[in-house]
Amino acid sequence: MSERLVVIGGDAAGMSAASQARRLKAPGELEIVAFERGSFTSFSACGIPYWVGGEVSERAELIARTPEEHRARGIDLRTRTEVLEIDPARRRVRSRDLASGAEDWTAYDKLVIATGARPLRPPLPGIDAPGVHGVQTLGDGQALLDRLAATEGRRAVVIGAGYIGVEMAEALLRRGYEVTVVNRGEQPMSTLDPDMGRLVHDAMSGMGITMVNDAEVTKILTGADGAVRAVATQDAEYPADVVVLGLGVRPETELARAAGLPLGEHGGLLTDLSMRVRGPVADGAIWAGGDCVEVLDLISGQQRHIALGTHANKHGQVIGSNVGDGYATFPGVVGTAVSKVCDLEIARTGLREKDARAVGLRYETVTIESTSRAGYYPGAAPMTVKMLAERRTGRLLGTQIVGREGAAKRVDVAAVALTARMTVEQMTALDLGYAPPFSPVWDPVLVAARKAVAAVRRTGG
Amino acid sequence: MSERLVVIGGDAAGMSAASQARRLKAPGELEIVAFERGSFTSFSACGIPYWVGGEVSERAELIARTPEEHRARGIDLRTRTEVLEIDPARRRVRSRDLASGAEDWTAYDKLVIATGARPLRPPLPGIDAPGVHGVQTLGDGQALLDRLAATEGRRAVVIGAGYIGVEMAEALLRRGYEVTVVNRGEQPMSTLDPDMGRLVHDAMSGMGITMVNDAEVTKILTGADGAVRAVATQDAEYPADVVVLGLGVRPETELARAAGLPLGEHGGLLTDLSMRVRGPVADGAIWAGGDCVEVLDLISGQQRHIALGTHANKHGQVIGSNVGDGYATFPGVVGTAVSKVCDLEIARTGLREKDARAVGLRYETVTIESTSRAGYYPGAAPMTVKMLAERRTGRLLGTQIVGREGAAKRVDVAAVALTARMTVEQMTALDLGYAPPFSPVWDPVLVAARKAVAAVRRTGG
Repeated sequence: MSERLVVIGGDAAGMSAASQARRLKAPGELEIVAFERGSFTSFSACGIPYWVGGEVSERAELIARTPEEHRARGIDLRTRTEVLEIDPARRRVRSRDLASGAEDWTAYDKLVIATGARPLRPPLPGIDAPGVHGVQTLGDGQALLDRLAATEGRRAVVIGAGYIGVEMAEALLRRGYEVTVVNRGEQPMSTLDPDMGRLVHDAMSGMGITMVNDAEVTKILTGADGAVRAVATQDAEYPADVVVLGLGVRPETELARAAGLPLGEHGGLLTDLSMRVRGPVADGAIWAGGDCVEVLDLISGQQRHIALGTHANKHGQVIGSNVGDGYATFPGVVGTAVSKVCDLEIARTGLREKDARAVGLRYETVTIESTSRAGYYPGAAPMTVKMLAERRTGRLLGTQIVGREGAAKRVDVAAVALTARMTVEQMTALDLGYAPPFSPVWDPVLVAARKAVAAVRRTGG
Repeated sequence: MSERLVVIGGDAAGMSAASQARRLKAPGELEIVAFERGSFTSFSACGIPYWVGGEVSERAELIARTPEEHRARGIDLRTRTEVLEIDPARRRVRSRDLASGAEDWTAYDKLVIATGARPLRPPLPGIDAPGVHGVQTLGDGQALLDRLAATEGRRAVVIGAGYIGVEMAEALLRRGYEVTVVNRGEQPMSTLDPDMGRLVHDAMSGMGITMVNDAEVTKILTGADGAVRAVATQDAEYPADVVVLGLGVRPETELARAAGLPLGEHGGLLTDLSMRVRGPVADGAIWAGGDCVEVLDLISGQQRHIALGTHANKHGQVIGSNVGDGYATFPGVVGTAVSKVCDLEIARTGLREKDARAVGLRYETVTIESTSRAGYYPGAAPMTVKMLAERRTGRLLGTQIVGREGAAKRVDVAAVALTARMTVEQMTALDLGYAPPFSPVWDPVLVAARKAVAAVRRTGG
């Protein structure tokens, strides 16, 4: 007797889950129906800044698998079809075909919720004016590119200085715009400690980007044509021919909330280690993954919401294995993220100082300067590494890196060390790859670990 | 009462030990005497290929700290002074000033042996002919550069295809030579499995380097002027205006052997975890580190000899801490090494297939192709990752990577995972940095780990 798997959301988590389940179960054993509100599936939202910036020339390059490809693999994919309601008691979902308006109930034996996240869009005056753009979907990216092509203006304001904000600042700079980044925080990249964020600030200023910190946007000013002409803060006005919103995202969990499924303090769905939604309402038949769930931070022990394609893919893989009667778990995250602005590389993993304080951890911090290659080797680029280690135990708590080429991916060493709960003393003995074109004889991460050992010893507990 | 520390060898391990001891102990507490046979100290032997190749323009750039700098820091450094004998019973060493020929006994309370390694130089006919060069010391590098400047020839033969061999092939290519690499092994880079070595072979051939495998050099042929003119193997002759030896090294432990100190099966000194030489003869007063010692391979449980500057520096740091009444240990290695030939990057860590077999481990292997960045991002470069996992347990045993830009340092993730004794299943959940300019959404190492999980499951034990 065939079961039916229903998937809500046709992007990374949902379609990874569907594809993995399909690999494990033949169509005769498991029918798979996937609903996607938009027209695209399995696209790289993380790639949109590079499409806008021109490094990626075609939208199609950002699409890992088209609806047709999914269908050819035996997934009944229904695009332009929005799920309006989940009825866990009767194990069914209500959907609407956006073209015809027709509504339908579809029963499920197993359900995957992969509804993603929605960008924050504060209710500012003028926020809906032409020329104000989000960059969440391929449609958003296309609309922004159309706007850039259509306007003669050359001034862009990016609101927000997180990953999307700084990546869009680069993209607009590449398009020849004068770019201003308006940011509520003390420094850009609030996922870093402020001292490391300051390095990002200085580097972006050095690229000719106007960086405005501690600024609250109060309204979007429009011109006679109704389109954006400036962004106003409490202090000043910044002329803008185009405005890009990079204010972060929230889990898209309205359907789940309405169905009575459990949400965490960040608004994301709460799952167990197999990515199955917790609690009696879900009744063991509902899984969730991607940007709509909260994940366990393995270092702080707290739930977090992290919208990142790499997690979404892992979640989908885990869900697909489990709904396909295999076995896999997602143990949690350590909070690794990398980004770049032109040639500036930014990376972080683990806890910031304020995260550590918030969960009652005492720590030492050290910051060191090193280079990506042996100092004498051409192209050796500077980087700054900050490391947090727990007092007394010396356990690694977090690492932040700001530098140039070769800086960002070094954070992976710290990410693995965090996962393995290594101390900074243990890290000093790590056998990392060394040759002059690739590293100084002490890798920058090891230099930081050595200094952290000394700091932990000095305070002695 | 002041103690005296004597150090034999003025390079990475010896001078790191001396410097670290100096940091911990004032000159009034600890006198430090260091003997160095040559004229230089603390130089980067690993940098010689790049100096020969022209990326590094000045010899001085390869010297991390000059004799004068060491002396200014309170180390009684005696260059051009060779230690001829260690007398552990009376805790003294006999040295000769190479300029005057004067000999002297120097008493020690603590002794550090850091005599390094010597390059293999088989007793072939013609091996001492002008034009045949090793590349172990700065003097060797200078002699080779002088030879290159003085000859009009344009054909170079490199004997050996390990790290030094392939790096010297690049250097000579950069100098405009027609390069032939003659190699005894089945493939170049015998530190990789042959299937991965084949990728190096193909890539180097593609660079215009003539790659000759399975070739035993029988003699060096000389011309009428007595200088090298060709390299002969059992099968053929390869014309050569210059020959570079890259046949590997052996621990330089003649002094230690003569003193009755314990040597391992690779000829290196045997130490404990604090880098103190084992056994009654050393009597707890002798430490050793760098290229003259054997180290514990944490994965195979065997002793190995690995000549690598990064280990030597760590050893020195550990020894200096311990002789300075601090505390540090060197737990062992996992066998990480990275190298490059032009734009080809080569990396390995852990066990090869034959290493695993040799110690009785059963394993699965997988090999995958991936890219350094998201496939759609400019500069995404291909790489091949091979992974070994133990049968049943799924524990990671080794990883080899051959690719282009961005390939080599990814091996660090596997190196940390090996150190932490992770399984490939645990690795699939690693929270590695992801953004399109830095990685596909599944990092290549994770792609390999996923496939390894499937392989381990398939055989089920």
